[in-house]
Amino acid sequence: MTSEPKRLVALLSGPDQKGLVSKVSSWIFDNGGNIIHADQHRDAEAGVFFQRVEWSVGNENEAEQVAQDFQSFGDSIGMKTKVAISGDKPKVAIFVSKFDHCFHDLILRWKAGEYPCEIALIISNHKDLAEVAQSYGIAYHHIPVSKANKPDAEAEQLALLKKEGIDLVIMARYMQILSSIFLDTFGKPVINIHHSFLPAFAGARPYHQAHSKGVKLIGATAHYATPDLDQGPIIHQDVARITHRNSVEDLVRKGRDLEKLTLAQAVRWHLENRILVYENKTVVFD
Amino acid sequence: MTSEPKRLVALLSGPDQKGLVSKVSSWIFDNGGNIIHADQHRDAEAGVFFQRVEWSVGNENEAEQVAQDFQSFGDSIGMKTKVAISGDKPKVAIFVSKFDHCFHDLILRWKAGEYPCEIALIISNHKDLAEVAQSYGIAYHHIPVSKANKPDAEAEQLALLKKEGIDLVIMARYMQILSSIFLDTFGKPVINIHHSFLPAFAGARPYHQAHSKGVKLIGATAHYATPDLDQGPIIHQDVARITHRNSVEDLVRKGRDLEKLTLAQAVRWHLENRILVYENKTVVFD
Amino acid sequence: MTSEPKRLVALLSGPDQKGLVSKVSSWIFDNGGNIIHADQHRDAEAGVFFQRVEWSVGNENEAEQVAQDFQSFGDSIGMKTKVAISGDKPKVAIFVSKFDHCFHDLILRWKAGEYPCEIALIISNHKDLAEVAQSYGIAYHHIPVSKANKPDAEAEQLALLKKEGIDLVIMARYMQILSSIFLDTFGKPVINIHHSFLPAFAGARPYHQAHSKGVKLIGATAHYATPDLDQGPIIHQDVARITHRNSVEDLVRKGRDLEKLTLAQAVRWHLENRILVYENKTVVFD
Amino acid sequence: MTSEPKRLVALLSGPDQKGLVSKVSSWIFDNGGNIIHADQHRDAEAGVFFQRVEWSVGNENEAEQVAQDFQSFGDSIGMKTKVAISGDKPKVAIFVSKFDHCFHDLILRWKAGEYPCEIALIISNHKDLAEVAQSYGIAYHHIPVSKANKPDAEAEQLALLKKEGIDLVIMARYMQILSSIFLDTFGKPVINIHHSFLPAFAGARPYHQAHSKGVKLIGATAHYATPDLDQGPIIHQDVARITHRNSVEDLVRKGRDLEKLTLAQAVRWHLENRILVYENKTVVFD
Repeated sequence: MTSEPKRLVALLSGPDQKGLVSKVSSWIFDNGGNIIHADQHRDAEAGVFFQRVEWSVGNENEAEQVAQDFQSFGDSIGMKTKVAISGDKPKVAIFVSKFDHCFHDLILRWKAGEYPCEIALIISNHKDLAEVAQSYGIAYHHIPVSKANKPDAEAEQLALLKKEGIDLVIMARYMQILSSIFLDTFGKPVINIHHSFLPAFAGARPYHQAHSKGVKLIGATAHYATPDLDQGPIIHQDVARITHRNSVEDLVRKGRDLEKLTLAQAVRWHLENRILVYENKTVVFD
Repeated sequence: MTSEPKRLVALLSGPDQKGLVSKVSSWIFDNGGNIIHADQHRDAEAGVFFQRVEWSVGNENEAEQVAQDFQSFGDSIGMKTKVAISGDKPKVAIFVSKFDHCFHDLILRWKAGEYPCEIALIISNHKDLAEVAQSYGIAYHHIPVSKANKPDAEAEQLALLKKEGIDLVIMARYMQILSSIFLDTFGKPVINIHHSFLPAFAGARPYHQAHSKGVKLIGATAHYATPDLDQGPIIHQDVARITHRNSVEDLVRKGRDLEKLTLAQAVRWHLENRILVYENKTVVFD
Repeated sequence: MTSEPKRLVALLSGPDQKGLVSKVSSWIFDNGGNIIHADQHRDAEAGVFFQRVEWSVGNENEAEQVAQDFQSFGDSIGMKTKVAISGDKPKVAIFVSKFDHCFHDLILRWKAGEYPCEIALIISNHKDLAEVAQSYGIAYHHIPVSKANKPDAEAEQLALLKKEGIDLVIMARYMQILSSIFLDTFGKPVINIHHSFLPAFAGARPYHQAHSKGVKLIGATAHYATPDLDQGPIIHQDVARITHRNSVEDLVRKGRDLEKLTLAQAVRWHLENRILVYENKTVVFD
Repeated sequence: MTSEPKRLVALLSGPDQKGLVSKVSSWIFDNGGNIIHADQHRDAEAGVFFQRVEWSVGNENEAEQVAQDFQSFGDSIGMKTKVAISGDKPKVAIFVSKFDHCFHDLILRWKAGEYPCEIALIISNHKDLAEVAQSYGIAYHHIPVSKANKPDAEAEQLALLKKEGIDLVIMARYMQILSSIFLDTFGKPVINIHHSFLPAFAGARPYHQAHSKGVKLIGATAHYATPDLDQGPIIHQDVARITHRNSVEDLVRKGRDLEKLTLAQAVRWHLENRILVYENKTVVFD
């Protein structure tokens, strides 16, 4: 649709102060923009203001310039600001192991047009999905990981991410822990899916833990990866009902659907620039 | 909490035009207010703009005046505007018949402090709940309704509503249909709870219909009453899972919880000034 | 309904062995009964068999005798057996503190005919609900509990339970911990409602914990009370969605609905003899 | 797992009579079987008895013979009976048009081992999915359908189904209506997914209808196809929440997940022999 005007989406956060909504909306109006949607949040305790504002620019050739100007404006009012232009497609890398349900799910959603991004490459510590990645037409990099070679493997991964200019890593049931060095060096968001309702059943084999505890619901949690394992800011969670009839295998099967849907939603919100992080929590402007 | 500043909540709607968010937020800023929350929506097809904005006023003695001024401002920019002041308590009448689950639920929520309103009176076509209404300390008016006396009964109801200055009527499973004359004369919102997932199973005995159709979910729908029976703007809906084991009586029992929760949520949103109606649909700023 | 035949419900559990379903159903058939519903479960790992069977007796005057005979039959095939006769109404005591939402909810459901039991008495460590208990027509016993007098208070509670022949205690947000001595001496089931999705946020102030962790769902857990605090067999759990906008107060409000519904369901299952406990887990024949 | 004993699953239905549970379980016991799971249902109004019973046979070489004998036994007690042997894999045909989400979902579940069946062939009125079907290794038959050639196209479809011995057809968003002649001639189950909460929004463009009505939930319904369009026995239904912000396109996107999950569950229940149909309703022994 060539006639649809360019849109900008800005995420702002910073110390609360009077008149912020007015300042931002006036700036946009004065610069020829029209606000399509704006949502804001105040954390009264923390004294922090958060805003997501989406607007159409008057002259779409100027979108890039307006984005830069807004960034400067955000700085001038003391707000941490991030601006995205509609049509921009961040580059995404999927990390995967042998479990392929989230992997297929993400790629099929992307192919169905659900995700405004480019899935640029797949990295796996196994060869299992190389062939299907090829059928999807996506570059597949097999980087085996062992206790011994982990630093080297991560260096190789980082080199690939850097070379391809990757903006987001999605751990689609990638069964390895990314080191703090990896996370620091990459310096961009990494989304992980954990197969439990965190903080319950953090760590290994959560379905076994759930089964042994006799809980009546299982969950999944999509969160940003941080050096604190399974402790990063939670983006989205969901649960499914189970009964005494369900074996661990049933939990694993039901969990696959949970994991797919929970991760898929978290990725969508991230790609639509709906998420702000602070104090290890997220603000999701849905 | 004496120190909490007065807040205003405004609901605006009208023809979309550039700069509306900016105009509204600037007006509030210029008049010493601080926006606590603002949410807006554009219906692109219909070309209509909707906004809910909540702000604290600088000087709380001026809240009344600011509300009036904002109303005039809304008029001046072509917006249909409604302003409420925090602490104001609209007066509510509950219409009830014999089924008492929604009745108890609403009153207990009100007593628990969930609802910023005054439940001023109860009107019923039966005497059954007179005693319990008394124990709740709420005036109870028994107005029998028959085919023959319906116009007179409605006139009596309207007189009561007028005398008490009622702002909202809640039909808590009131098993009578309010006539268009009643609705027109009252001229204020009436919320009804229908015991099905409308538009499925409109009309009488929806649980029997659901059971006979063999559906796997039953629903409830809270909506504003209009002369078109069961066709008014939908505020909220929810469903519950049923199985082949469930009899009509089970559906009725499960439905009671659905009806309570669905009506309770709709009433909360209404009392918090979160709902705008247009084209027989609702915008709910949750 | 005088014409409805008497029904028996039996719960059996014990070491798995071939032909159990056949033996039980044949016994019932040979004794003139007609099975209305039967459900069974095998825990293959533990080698345990569980069954709930509900049948109508041919001659209702013999119901009591058939129940005794079935009990003996159960013993003879090595099954732990419990038989209930339809129309029997176990006596229930509600323990409550100041929070009254579960309290009202349980009593209103009982008054609406949802629960086949007799709510014989209410015990509270506060006087707050004495008056409303009176309006409900239920005996209210105020037994203050302090660190110092706890053994005495529990002795007083136990004496009341014994005197009234109480079969089930429901802790309807009773904010005290019942000692192991109390639980052992009472020797009958105690159902508790915990305001979190256990095992997450066990212990005090779960809503504060949930808020501080930034989880996106809150939960409630109904379980049988055991000496291990918050660790008893889970009967039912449910969750509600929350967002960054929700304060701890919002969580508390949303939690009230969760707690009511989760406890209400657990109590219903218990009263309908649908629950068997083993290895700190429950089998719920829904 | 070679050591796992063969299992039989029988579905029985017929006029209710005393002692049926006993007769069935005794027959199985007398024939050396051990009941793993049994579930039954009585429709008291209709006077019909339904049972699903699953048992392990003593000698697995005799499974086939026991199945035949049970069939005869079922006949002898006046029950309509269907017996399946574990390890048997019914042959399935997927009918698909251009929408591919349910198509991929079913095949990936099958490849993940979720479905005890053989997906033998795909039939489509379009060529779009031919290539991906090839990558999945499943035969793809392109049979264009127009108003003019419909009888011929259906004859061609039926010939394929017959030749391959297909036991189940799944309409995975196949956008054509199968004629009564087709359904009668095929004579075996056909599962369809409708993209609404039936009976609401039967017929075409349900998401447009839902959007225009302003409902707050959208649904999906998996049902057996019958000559009465969108009126066949409902197997499973689910819903998702929508808001005023959602466009028809959003409904379509959210609906894809609903359709996938609802159809996937219905297919699983069917393949596990959990569904009995009567009076245009289903009994699902979950």
